[in-house]
Amino acid sequence: MQLRRNKIRFSKINHIFISHIHGDHIFGLYGLLSTFSLLGRKNPLYLYAPENYGAILKAHLSDFDIHLSYEIEFVPLRGKNPVLILDDRYITVRAFPLLHRIPSYGFLFTEKSGERKIIKEAITEHNIPVSRIPSIKNGADFTREDGVVIRNGEITLPPHSAYSYAYCSDTRYFKRLSTFIKDVTLLYHEATFETDKQKLALITGHSTSADAANVAREAGARALIIGHFSSRYKDTDKLVKEARSIFGPTFAAEEGKTYDLSEIDSL
Amino acid sequence: MQLRRNKIRFSKINHIFISHIHGDHIFGLYGLLSTFSLLGRKNPLYLYAPENYGAILKAHLSDFDIHLSYEIEFVPLRGKNPVLILDDRYITVRAFPLLHRIPSYGFLFTEKSGERKIIKEAITEHNIPVSRIPSIKNGADFTREDGVVIRNGEITLPPHSAYSYAYCSDTRYFKRLSTFIKDVTLLYHEATFETDKQKLALITGHSTSADAANVAREAGARALIIGHFSSRYKDTDKLVKEARSIFGPTFAAEEGKTYDLSEIDSL
Repeated sequence: MQLRRNKIRFSKINHIFISHIHGDHIFGLYGLLSTFSLLGRKNPLYLYAPENYGAILKAHLSDFDIHLSYEIEFVPLRGKNPVLILDDRYITVRAFPLLHRIPSYGFLFTEKSGERKIIKEAITEHNIPVSRIPSIKNGADFTREDGVVIRNGEITLPPHSAYSYAYCSDTRYFKRLSTFIKDVTLLYHEATFETDKQKLALITGHSTSADAANVAREAGARALIIGHFSSRYKDTDKLVKEARSIFGPTFAAEEGKTYDLSEIDSL
Repeated sequence: MQLRRNKIRFSKINHIFISHIHGDHIFGLYGLLSTFSLLGRKNPLYLYAPENYGAILKAHLSDFDIHLSYEIEFVPLRGKNPVLILDDRYITVRAFPLLHRIPSYGFLFTEKSGERKIIKEAITEHNIPVSRIPSIKNGADFTREDGVVIRNGEITLPPHSAYSYAYCSDTRYFKRLSTFIKDVTLLYHEATFETDKQKLALITGHSTSADAANVAREAGARALIIGHFSSRYKDTDKLVKEARSIFGPTFAAEEGKTYDLSEIDSL
């Protein structure tokens, strides 16, 4: 329903990342898998989740008498260190362990550096033919008709820095977490409780808004989105305020909102 | 979400009836069970479903690490004949087998006859004290101060006929079904396909709108609501029209609409 509301095409989704097997993070999955099948999907779907979910998923599909029109490629998450789990033309994705009541993983999505930007004036100055532009954007030097070699650095500008996004939920605070997401552009981090509920946060394996802000600060994030608020909080002002006292560029997550990483990068 | 939208209080729900273990009939259950628990429910919840679901439910609650704040009393549905599964002060509920690809059950909800209605003029005429009215409504005769016995039938009118509602989904048409729901006030019956898709209906274990109408006619229902339409149909006009050619008082199900059985009874 949220995908339809936000006009996201189902066929665009090829990878699903599941942090852990608690209801608020997984109950929607079966309806989505079934809908894909009703729509006649053929492309395989890559599903990344804690390793014990592989057998559970298989059993549940059988329990619910679900026969999918496509294959699920299950990628098990395990271990105590960050692991590269996806590396395609545009991005890499790394999974890293969180600290919750059950095995839980966070995800770091890092854009690959784009092409270098060609300097327009250089095209005229050196009479660069259109056919050479793609290789120059990929870093090649240019040899002029008169034999003079123009170094790539003289005719191009570097691509923008690679943007990245990290998703950390659900988790307690732990010191090492920030090292997994060093210099991330945008961090989503759960903040289930206000700061006075530190004890409850520890017991339930969740974070306070101060915990989330500390992770953002220690990681050197550009911005922080907090979410996963306990239903006891009717508004998010105090949660955001507490986080901002530690890490300035903090925002409360808003359902359906799009965040532009280039804008965040220039904050 | 639908309960909240329709302002139905969660604490009012003590019995859940599951026809069969297919996604469109069960995926919403786990979120509901979890929400009850988050709200601190203490009262047991009665869950009626095909018998194999008992073990599945237990496994799924464990798989999802769900710890409920209340007990689930699981009532297994089995067998080829109607069974009385609930009998409280106000209603009885019977489960009966349907004919689908997997074990599937329908439900017949029958109101208990209410109290007899006392005739107002009789109160003045025979000088009936207020203290005697409850027993008279329950069928007692009245002995006047002068020793004359007035028969209950002279001072009361019978209660309205007991209303009933039957839910039949998912199922193929089969002759015996109508005998399970004889004289039902309101029948909800699936009508997945238009009448020209009879073959597909048989293969998939579903009904056409003509099938649904035939069940309503054979059962002597007062009215029929059809639903569970294939997503191939953009509007329901033809489905309703086909059903009405067999059974007049047919309506297409509308999400969130309330149907008044006393109005239907007087159709």
